[in-house]
Formats: sequence, structure tokens, C-alpha cells
Amino acid sequence: MSHRYERPTIRRAGSYVPGEQPEDDGVIKLNTNENPYPPSPQLEQALRGFDVSRLRRYPQPTAQTFRAAAARLHDVPADSVIATNGGDELLRLVFATFVEPGESIGYASPSYSLYPVLAELHGAAVFNVDLQPDWTLPDDFAQQMNRAGVKVTFVVNPHAPSGALLSASDISALAQSLDGVLLLDEAYVDFVDPNERYNALPLVAQRENVLILRSLSKGYSLAGLRYGYGIGSPGLITPIQNKTKDSYNTDVLGQLLATAALEDQAYAADTWRRVRADRASLREALQTRGFAVGPSHANFLLARIPTDAAVPSAGTVYELLKQQNILVRYFGADPRLADCLRISVGTPQENARLLAALDAMA
Amino acid sequence: MSHRYERPTIRRAGSYVPGEQPEDDGVIKLNTNENPYPPSPQLEQALRGFDVSRLRRYPQPTAQTFRAAAARLHDVPADSVIATNGGDELLRLVFATFVEPGESIGYASPSYSLYPVLAELHGAAVFNVDLQPDWTLPDDFAQQMNRAGVKVTFVVNPHAPSGALLSASDISALAQSLDGVLLLDEAYVDFVDPNERYNALPLVAQRENVLILRSLSKGYSLAGLRYGYGIGSPGLITPIQNKTKDSYNTDVLGQLLATAALEDQAYAADTWRRVRADRASLREALQTRGFAVGPSHANFLLARIPTDAAVPSAGTVYELLKQQNILVRYFGADPRLADCLRISVGTPQENARLLAALDAMA
Repeated sequence: MSHRYERPTIRRAGSYVPGEQPEDDGVIKLNTNENPYPPSPQLEQALRGFDVSRLRRYPQPTAQTFRAAAARLHDVPADSVIATNGGDELLRLVFATFVEPGESIGYASPSYSLYPVLAELHGAAVFNVDLQPDWTLPDDFAQQMNRAGVKVTFVVNPHAPSGALLSASDISALAQSLDGVLLLDEAYVDFVDPNERYNALPLVAQRENVLILRSLSKGYSLAGLRYGYGIGSPGLITPIQNKTKDSYNTDVLGQLLATAALEDQAYAADTWRRVRADRASLREALQTRGFAVGPSHANFLLARIPTDAAVPSAGTVYELLKQQNILVRYFGADPRLADCLRISVGTPQENARLLAALDAMA
Repeated sequence: MSHRYERPTIRRAGSYVPGEQPEDDGVIKLNTNENPYPPSPQLEQALRGFDVSRLRRYPQPTAQTFRAAAARLHDVPADSVIATNGGDELLRLVFATFVEPGESIGYASPSYSLYPVLAELHGAAVFNVDLQPDWTLPDDFAQQMNRAGVKVTFVVNPHAPSGALLSASDISALAQSLDGVLLLDEAYVDFVDPNERYNALPLVAQRENVLILRSLSKGYSLAGLRYGYGIGSPGLITPIQNKTKDSYNTDVLGQLLATAALEDQAYAADTWRRVRADRASLREALQTRGFAVGPSHANFLLARIPTDAAVPSAGTVYELLKQQNILVRYFGADPRLADCLRISVGTPQENARLLAALDAMA
């Protein structure tokens, strides 16, 4: 295969390795944080009533019906919202809009492994500091980012892969201290317990450098639909909307179903409650078995393999589970995660199958 | 609104202005080249049988089922095919994969107005030559591109907005002469009369610098679905597939419906036949009324307003039609097109309404 036409930046770049996506329905899939429950029955309705001939015409270029629904839900102006083809598209667009090639982005490790891949593809530099042992940001994080001239700082909250949660006031202080844009990746925010009273949305009106990413993949059980959105000040949203996004970046069916999903809050919130309850049970069950599992505010747990027991290494556990058609995520390349598994919270039946498989290994 | 966070390249850049997309069903929409007929009834079937719970999981990252269908249809290997979120995504990915910022892309004007917009957003230079008066390429086109160091040359065939068709042997000779990649944009190729025996697909195996763009928007009546694909040598396709495209760039429903559409060739071909027949009638009717209309191999006609008759200017005709809820495309900014209208071929009823409106103006 000839690579002669590839630009040097791309020839050098690595590629993002997504989690395994087997087609087999028999697999217990706890590796890519899908919601274990199906999407709202309203989507079934919307699809049954859909006139296929509508596909003949172009979609709304800026998805105004969906954006109006999101704006109502979050009580923000519609021009603070941009619809994207999955949250990942928004991440790419943030590079395209705010970062010149050669400039830097920053984040604290470990984090979403797509950030450095997008940086490399864009020709941007990465400034990367370590999270504290409890997965919180170092105190001088903003100052370090500023000194490095970082244009966009990526913070995923709740954090992946640990599930740790920064408070909204910590986020606010961070945004105030940062010279550049704060991309607050809230892909997992729907699974935060309402008792935490976490709400970063008011920051959008208060801080013109805050862009919040939301995804329908997890909270609304729509990973297959590719639908996400951004919420930010018009100064951040408008150049993406009018310039850097593809003209028709989301399609007619995506807009329709994403709107229906967002409007059925009661159904989605019920899946969040169930995931939270099962997250607590699964955490306890893993702890009972000697795993170290911190509190998680997302729909997954980061479980550290017991060191003093007769349990195989994390990589081996991952492989043994896979042989039994149970997929979890293993980040062997990162020394801080090499003895951990990230386990999505499944249905009670799936979680029980996982625990039984772990018991059989011990 | 503060623009302080926008990167300079984007702050300076213009934006692509898509054709008007009114929601009103009463509009006769002959401005953005949608197919006047609905998509295949097989899509209705596919949608009715679709289990909404499938949306819970991620899509196939590289759309292998769709790619296999496209590979069968075109008799090419599946690794020569990449699925994209509309043809426009492929155009953007071509910049991301083959053009360093600061390098040049090229094309002959007039052409698809998105090419220079994408170049500006990418920080690429544009090398731009004029088409001949009959809308064919100048003889030394490849040499001019090579001398300018052009990395990717964009050729839309059939040409937009004229509908003129280059032969496959002309394309082959061009590809052979070009130092860089030839992006052959075949968005309108389905409307070429089979009697023309036009087929550029064999070039993919013969020339490693040819990347063919196909779209389901027009030929398969699926502008609202956002689905397109590229066909090229593995050296061109693989870096896009593995590196520059978003990890899950097309969604579950898009993959399902695009596959169903591609597999119902008989239905789609029937819409192409009808559009060709109506294209011939509409061309003749416009010529009878004094418009100069060249032969078109696409699903639109470029009609030059009569100069010696009592017809208003093209801009005025566009406005008068719009007042009657008939939309056509007017490219007033281009001196070579300022006395022209681009008119999509509609249903016989829509075309008759257009002609009646023109008659009422004369």
C-alpha cells in the first residue's frame, strides 16, 4: 500500500482505538459505557410515525428544533446550543475553531484517550499533567495550563475512567483562572446523583470561555445514533455553527429521535436511577471481593485488582472474561491504570454474570 | 459577542452559504438538486422492522455492512470504500488527510462553492483556473496544477452548475498527469444517461491517486440522511478510515437505510430515468422560451436568461419566482453565472408550475 499522498502530519499520527464493538448479541458488553437499558419508547413512536419521503430533502442545517428542545431543557438561549454528530464531533470542532496547528491543548492524565489523538491529527501540541492520586486536579492546574499557553483545556467531569466528580464551584474557579477555553466534557453527567446538586450550566452565562459537551450516547441510550451537543457563550458557539461544522452535520432522523429522547426526561431519569442503584451494588460486591473501587458518579466503575490475593493480573482478568463473552475495558498502556479494569454498569443480570465469572477465577 | 477565543484562521474565514431549506411543504424546491421522487419503499420496510433498542449500542465504526454492499455494487474491494456522513464529510477529510495547512488545492471555476470554503478553514491555499466557455477543462489544466504544487485537485463530474460531462478517458489522462490526488466528485453521476457509457470506477484500480466521491443525497433521494462514500486505492482510503475520520462517523440508522437504498438499484434507476426524461422536456421548454441551456448530465439545468427579450435579469427572475414559492439557485456573485439560474429538475407538475411562472413574467 502506497502512503505517498498522505500528509506528513497524518503519516506520523497514531490512531484512536475505539472499544471493541462485537455484533454478537450474546456478548455481555461492559466495555464502552453504553446504557444497559433501551432508549425511550417515545422513539419507537417517532420512528413509526416518520414519513420516509422526508429524507428526500436536506435536514435543518443547524438542527433548530433539537436546539430549541435542548435550550428549553437547560434554560439557556438556543444560540448557546450547537448540535453535533456525537460528542466526538464537538471535540474535533473545538480544535478546528480555537487551536491553530502548532498551538497547545491541555488536560490532566489519565483522561479520554481521544484528546491527544485529535491533537496529533490537528498538528497541535499536548500539555499534559498528572492527576492527583485521588483523581482530582493539582492545585496549580490552571496556572500550569496558562504558563504553557494552552488554548483549550479539556476536563471530563465526572472523570473517566475513575468516575470522580469535581464540584461546579471548582469548575467555575478553574474557568476563571484559565486564559483559554475550558471544554467541560460532561458525557457522563446524567449519572450523577441529584443529591450531589452538581450543576455547571450556570457557568455558560457567567464565563465566556466555558463550553460544555453533552452526549446522548450514554444518558439517553443512543450511542448508535451519534448525537451530542455543546452549550456555551455565543462567542464560542457561533464560529462553530457558522464556519467549522459541516453544513448539514446532523441528519433528519438523528434530529427527530434526539429531540424525542431529550423530551422524555422521565424515562431517561428512570434509567439513571437504576444505573446508580446497580452501580452501588456492583461497587460493594467488587469491594467484598478485594477490589479497590473508588466512588463513581458515572455509569462505570474503575476497579483495581487485589494485589494480595490469588487473583490474576488485570490484563489476564480482561482476557479470561473475554473468553467468557464478557467485555470490560483494560488500559494496559497506562502505568497508573495497568492494574485496573473499567467496568460499565450493566443490568443486574449482567453484573451478576460478571461477578460469577470473577468468583470462578479466584 | 466576543470573538477572543476564535483562532485567527477561523476569524478571517468566510462561511459556506447552503441553499435555502424552507420547512414549508408548499414550496416548489428546485434550488438544491434534491431528487423529486421519494426514496425506495425498501427503506420504509427497513425502518418498520428496526428494533429501536439497537440504538443503545455503538454503530459499526467503519460501516462494514454498508461498505460490503457498495463494494458488491461497484465490483471493488471493500477496503477501497469509506462511508461518510454525507459527501461533504469526505471533502473535508480529503483536506485533513492529504493537505498540510499552507499547501494548495486546486480546481477550475466555476465549481462547488464549498471547495474554497473548506480550503480557507483548513488554512490551505487555492489555485484556481477558469473553465473554458463550454465548461470543459483547459488543455494544460494538469500542468497548471502541477506547477502550482497542488496536493488535491477537485473535479466535479458531471460538472456543477453546468451539467457538462467529461469522459472517463479524459479523467484518466488527467489523473495520470497530476502529481497530486484527484478528487473526482461524482455527486450527480447517477443521472448520466447509460448510453453515454461513462464509468470512471476502473480508474480506482489503475491510478492510485484517484478518489471518487459518491453521494446518496441525489441519486437515492436521501439528502436528509447524510450519507456518502469514497472509492479509492487503499493508500488513499486507509489513512482516512484509520486516522482522520471520527471514530463513529456514520450512525446505525444511516448505515441501515443507506444499505437498503443501494441494494434497491431498480427503484433508484427508475427515478434516474424519469429525471432524465423530464430534464430533456424542461430543457426544450426553456429553450423555446429563449433561454440558452446547454446539455446537462445531472439533475439540474443551467439556464442563461435571454438577453434580447423582455425578460428581467436573472436576479429579478429568481426573486419573482421566490415570491411565488418557487425556489431556484442564483449565483449572482460570479460574473460568469450572473445571467444564469440553476434549476433542479422537479416532477412534471413542478416543472410545469415553473414554466407557467416564467411565462407570466414575459
